[in-house]
Amino acid sequence: MTASDHMKSGTRNGNDTLARLAAVVESRKSGDPAKSYVARLFQKGGDAILKKIGEEATEVVMACKDGQRDKIVAEVADLWFHTLLALNAHGLAPTDVLAELERREGLSGLEEFAARKAVEREHSEKGTS
Amino acid sequence: MTASDHMKSGTRNGNDTLARLAAVVESRKSGDPAKSYVARLFQKGGDAILKKIGEEATEVVMACKDGQRDKIVAEVADLWFHTLLALNAHGLAPTDVLAELERREGLSGLEEFAARKAVEREHSEKGTS
Amino acid sequence: MTASDHMKSGTRNGNDTLARLAAVVESRKSGDPAKSYVARLFQKGGDAILKKIGEEATEVVMACKDGQRDKIVAEVADLWFHTLLALNAHGLAPTDVLAELERREGLSGLEEFAARKAVEREHSEKGTS
Amino acid sequence: MTASDHMKSGTRNGNDTLARLAAVVESRKSGDPAKSYVARLFQKGGDAILKKIGEEATEVVMACKDGQRDKIVAEVADLWFHTLLALNAHGLAPTDVLAELERREGLSGLEEFAARKAVEREHSEKGTS
Repeated sequence: MTASDHMKSGTRNGNDTLARLAAVVESRKSGDPAKSYVARLFQKGGDAILKKIGEEATEVVMACKDGQRDKIVAEVADLWFHTLLALNAHGLAPTDVLAELERREGLSGLEEFAARKAVEREHSEKGTS
Repeated sequence: MTASDHMKSGTRNGNDTLARLAAVVESRKSGDPAKSYVARLFQKGGDAILKKIGEEATEVVMACKDGQRDKIVAEVADLWFHTLLALNAHGLAPTDVLAELERREGLSGLEEFAARKAVEREHSEKGTS
Repeated sequence: MTASDHMKSGTRNGNDTLARLAAVVESRKSGDPAKSYVARLFQKGGDAILKKIGEEATEVVMACKDGQRDKIVAEVADLWFHTLLALNAHGLAPTDVLAELERREGLSGLEEFAARKAVEREHSEKGTS
Repeated sequence: MTASDHMKSGTRNGNDTLARLAAVVESRKSGDPAKSYVARLFQKGGDAILKKIGEEATEVVMACKDGQRDKIVAEVADLWFHTLLALNAHGLAPTDVLAELERREGLSGLEEFAARKAVEREHSEKGTS
């Protein structure tokens, strides 16, 4: 059953878009750079992927400033997609990120990392004058 | 079934995780800014969220350059989390982004947007001298 | 006295260089997009310039992580150059930015804006829990 | 004659704002982190400076989207200032960047780097499908 069949069948119970995309990325990354954008980016190397992350993040910011909802969706999709490439390049999967997000939530911890960062920052910035 | 039960049951998937996080964001955004990072960011306004997206994207880039896998996971989690805030601020949900990613995949389209962008770019940059 | 003569004469300084670049930008922006990168970016519009700023900032970050000095110089040059385009697009000149930097320095104020921002941040992040 | 005297004397002929700022940065970077923002950032390390570059670039983008001229000036000043810190951290000076910009201009080369990049990109993206 291909990803496409899967989508059409509508049996997406227990299905996972990001995991499936990650599998597609994995299958394409060593493909023909002339035919595949993913293969082309991987051929260019890690910096090309990271540059795209900076670029797509900027486009998310601009789309949000414009308040154009369809553009926001498209640019966040671009950003998430390129982070999947970066994860793959480091042997990581979206589940690693989702598990981290679950962990934070499980610890009532959506706030946890923020608290940690804010505390660090308050300590380091105290005494500003 | 709580989020925590959900996790233990093993039936969770990435789509669920993001949806659940989005629900948590929604529930906290109008909370007490003194107690909640999410409420605080929403109180500061949209620009504060966007600034964090730029900042977290930069941290993803730095973590990848360092090749530190646990840091990469943590920074991508931060980045995705802040994009959930931006989506919420515009009345959007992670499902909107996942649907867009599915749509592209369905059209064998992981490459589609890339192709479109590349073609635009080639047209516009031709004649550079 | 041409820019080139100017350089040879050794009387140039940074303020002059930026002013001269700004003049070149101004003269090229309404040129032929087929021949000029500057004209092409202006034809694409403001978002194209801003996207480049996000992209070049990311490249500065990557070059610094790599510690490659010639690449750092080249990428900072790219970043500064594209900020000149953004300034021009809003009827601003590098002297406006230099005057702001002078003003801060004059007020022993290199620290001033930083202090202001840090104080704002400490106020807003206090109570994180 | 200190930088401050220099400013007051008004004899800024042949003077250079960025060079003077770079000298101030150099003098403060090993100062007391409790008193100096510059010293504090250097104490935190290179990543803290790079993170600020990503953040300030995002703020330039947002200020431009808002079209607020005074904010654009302030944010570009922040961005240039933090690039001076990054240059210093790598033993570089603003003159290195200005010389690179002069070199490009001297070669009618404002377009040169852009052309190089565009050609690279066209080559690498050809065959996108």
